[in-house]
Amino acid sequence: MPIAQAIDDLTTLLGERVSLSKPDLEAHGASESYFPNTPPQAVTYPRTSEEVRRIVEICARESVPVIGWGAGTSLEGHGQALQGGVSVDFRLMNKVLEIRPADMDVTVQPGVTREALNEELRATGLFFPVDPGANASLGGMTMTRASGTTTVRYGSMRDNVLGMEVVLADGRMIRTGTRARKSAAGYDLTALMVGSEGTLGLATELTLRLHGVPEAISAGICAFPDMGAATACVMETIQMGIPMARIEFACGQTARAFNAYAGTDMAEAPHLMVEFHGSPESTAQDAERFAEIVADHGGSAFRWSGREEERRALWSMRHNGYYAILASRPGARGVVTDICVPISRLAEAVEATQADIATSGIPGPILGHVGDGNFHAILLVDPDQPAEQQTAKDLAARMAKRALQLGGTCTGEHGVGYGKLPFMAAEHGQGWQVMGAIKRALDPQNIMNPGKLVPGN
Amino acid sequence: MPIAQAIDDLTTLLGERVSLSKPDLEAHGASESYFPNTPPQAVTYPRTSEEVRRIVEICARESVPVIGWGAGTSLEGHGQALQGGVSVDFRLMNKVLEIRPADMDVTVQPGVTREALNEELRATGLFFPVDPGANASLGGMTMTRASGTTTVRYGSMRDNVLGMEVVLADGRMIRTGTRARKSAAGYDLTALMVGSEGTLGLATELTLRLHGVPEAISAGICAFPDMGAATACVMETIQMGIPMARIEFACGQTARAFNAYAGTDMAEAPHLMVEFHGSPESTAQDAERFAEIVADHGGSAFRWSGREEERRALWSMRHNGYYAILASRPGARGVVTDICVPISRLAEAVEATQADIATSGIPGPILGHVGDGNFHAILLVDPDQPAEQQTAKDLAARMAKRALQLGGTCTGEHGVGYGKLPFMAAEHGQGWQVMGAIKRALDPQNIMNPGKLVPGN
Ligand SMILES: Cc1cc2nc3c(=O)[nH]c(=O)nc-3n(C[C@H](O)[C@H](O)[C@H](O)COP(=O)(O)OP(=O)(O)OC[C@H]3O[C@@H](n4cnc5c(N)ncnc54)[C@H](O)[C@@H]3O)c2cc1C
Ligand SMILES: Cc1cc2nc3c(=O)[nH]c(=O)nc-3n(C[C@H](O)[C@H](O)[C@H](O)COP(=O)(O)OP(=O)(O)OC[C@H]3O[C@@H](n4cnc5c(N)ncnc54)[C@H](O)[C@@H]3O)c2cc1C
Repeated sequence: MPIAQAIDDLTTLLGERVSLSKPDLEAHGASESYFPNTPPQAVTYPRTSEEVRRIVEICARESVPVIGWGAGTSLEGHGQALQGGVSVDFRLMNKVLEIRPADMDVTVQPGVTREALNEELRATGLFFPVDPGANASLGGMTMTRASGTTTVRYGSMRDNVLGMEVVLADGRMIRTGTRARKSAAGYDLTALMVGSEGTLGLATELTLRLHGVPEAISAGICAFPDMGAATACVMETIQMGIPMARIEFACGQTARAFNAYAGTDMAEAPHLMVEFHGSPESTAQDAERFAEIVADHGGSAFRWSGREEERRALWSMRHNGYYAILASRPGARGVVTDICVPISRLAEAVEATQADIATSGIPGPILGHVGDGNFHAILLVDPDQPAEQQTAKDLAARMAKRALQLGGTCTGEHGVGYGKLPFMAAEHGQGWQVMGAIKRALDPQNIMNPGKLVPGN
Repeated sequence: MPIAQAIDDLTTLLGERVSLSKPDLEAHGASESYFPNTPPQAVTYPRTSEEVRRIVEICARESVPVIGWGAGTSLEGHGQALQGGVSVDFRLMNKVLEIRPADMDVTVQPGVTREALNEELRATGLFFPVDPGANASLGGMTMTRASGTTTVRYGSMRDNVLGMEVVLADGRMIRTGTRARKSAAGYDLTALMVGSEGTLGLATELTLRLHGVPEAISAGICAFPDMGAATACVMETIQMGIPMARIEFACGQTARAFNAYAGTDMAEAPHLMVEFHGSPESTAQDAERFAEIVADHGGSAFRWSGREEERRALWSMRHNGYYAILASRPGARGVVTDICVPISRLAEAVEATQADIATSGIPGPILGHVGDGNFHAILLVDPDQPAEQQTAKDLAARMAKRALQLGGTCTGEHGVGYGKLPFMAAEHGQGWQVMGAIKRALDPQNIMNPGKLVPGN
């Protein structure tokens, strides 16, 4: 059996850092979402780029699937071993290799989490902005093209990965990008790898862009009479060019879930949570202009959190939104939607979604990074009721279709995995086949995370 | 002959919009740089995406090369018909198709120039920032991943192309990207196409990001005792986080060339030209902080151009830098280098380059977008003296090698064409072969701009 031979060779290479234990296999077949557990046949824990290269070489020789594993927080079954094979868990590759304050960049191993990186950066006055809520690994974030609460200001992983070291499907190792801020030297392999979900290679090193910690930060929250008022406020704030660092939406049901989960006392109404970065003067001015727009749309007084602990409480509440919502229906699993539309269509998209959910009979709180036109409905389904799951899936499919009609995308930030495969043809047309052709060119044996992202595998 | 058959069919399709006239062919075999004229066998002037599709279909059937042509301002022989074939000139596809102020984006045909676009945007309060000096076409800028004076603040074409319509080598038409501000839906085909130099397909439509015209703009210029002082000033300004919209360097020889070409009276010393965008208060504050840094490095008083005409004069001088330098040695042609390094290595890179040029005996004024770590030496060679050309090429090769040693790239913005092919292996290692594999997957007949960018064609 090829897999038996591969495991033998991997054990020679890694010793105890190859695991065949059932709990370990199942932990690497699980997802934070509604997908069934699909474990790999072995889990490996490399420490170096060279070990990763050897792992891939062994698997390539035996035609065994290789699936990268960061923090396992992705939501579309990205890391699941649909065809068995070897999971490559990057948790031991968790070193910050070099911080270069003068160039405002850093090189890390892919297993470093975003929180760990920011902890290490504390003394430098710099930070890494991309913030998907979950304490994901930077490798996983790169591979899903993650974004989050601060993307409206600082961009997504697309904008913040300068270069990578990647092991390709045949065991070759390449470096993409340089440490220069820009380059016109050929195809943008860095951008091709960002968001490729481990289907083209494994990232073994990342060079990331850092940003200066702003002199002043202020954050706040306000409630609105209805969803339309809140989204209109977002659209106007953006169109006025007020430079938000964060602008997050939570619907009334989400507010109720927060109250129950975090012991807060928010009105059970739509809310916006915002943050401004800059100088004391500029943030004060931004906040003032924002408060005027809020008032124009019948929003409540804008509650400020100038102090750091208050701000932390606010964002930790937001970051626990998914878990708060899950807890609001005990035993439920979440079908997480993730559409993103042009800002001018945001109100329309949110309202149509809410109406659709209301008639479905399934709870589906809405929250999201509305400054980017990106929001999620978390459809809460009883895993024992297949009919509910079907209703949720139909709903999610209608949302995706609506996003495309409005000029948007079926996934703003979570990625494709295998959960979003059904929408790829509609979103990309022949472009999806082009993705398939690229995949075949770089991984003709289809061993890198098979069953994900591209057509027909 | 395949080409004869192709020309017949193209003529049936386009009538008089197929040209075989010698001047027309030569105009499409020329370059702004030192490369010999290499004309195509026919020039076509399509009006619609569908016509472009049919052109490619005909050429694919006959295995005839297809070379896109925008404004022909690229500097590495990008558009030259090294293997003959059909040039597709986009000048008639020059319509701004839709401006969407609420979403701050625009859809254009690729033949629209950046100046024409900004003219059309005038009334909207929005502008398109990428500014390579030359009045290039947006299609050409996309395909070379152009950047320019404002990239330090607004990014390059990589950051400002949201999506494209592309005709592939087999005549299929795809749309990449969406109008949403972000997406995680699979491989980033937009980023793959940006900078691909027409080797993967022809762009027939572009959706671009727009930015708000700042409330206040101020620009200025100052001189430095030496190059080291000027580059140190740039590095410090960036590290202090002063948000420049532009920061350009010109060496003493360049200043002399400006004086002769534009009738100015600059000191024949290294200069920085800067611009700040923001509110009246913020630009004043930025300028003040910048002036302090300039003074610390022994720079001259900072000469302001608050008024629009003065600013225009300043930047038009900068934009004519290449021609001013060419004029400083009558009859000379320019070998244009284009390295880009991490900011922390900028001083080192500029000084080593200057010393190297000084010993070569060839005039080589330096100027560039130093805020990105990107600068050019324009090596002025007598086209009738092969020895000089060789000296210049050797110099350029040493510059490229030095850039790589410092963690940078051999081309910050001009691209590869065929002039930069000799450095691709050193810059990318096996990554260059990966580019070749992608090329073969999407263009197995190698008809799209053959001889450029990828290995062995
Ligand atoms: C509560 C919650 C909130 C979330 N909020 C957001 C959000 O706001 N924005 C957002 O973008 N996402 C969000 N997500 C989704 C998730 O956090 C992101 O997708 C994240 O980027 C995944 O990182 P990870 O380290 O967990 O990757 P994993 O789930 O471990 O892996 C993700 C994919 O990358 C591959 N992979 C991992 N490491 C490597 C590597 N080194 N080389 C090659 N391939 C690799 C895997 O094979 C898999 O395909 C959220 C998830 C949860 C549970
Ligand atoms: C004085 C001067 C200053 C310059 N300064 C800068 C600068 O600051 N920054 C910078 O980045 N560049 C600069 N350049 C280089 C040049 O302006 C850029 O490379 C520009 O982007 C080229 O655009 P173009 O329309 O002239 O393209 P062209 O030269 O016509 O074509 C460039 C490439 O794109 C392909 N192409 C063109 N249109 C299409 C299409 N629709 N579909 C597919 N392929 C297509 C061509 O085949 C060719 O490979 C400068 C050049 C000059 C002469």
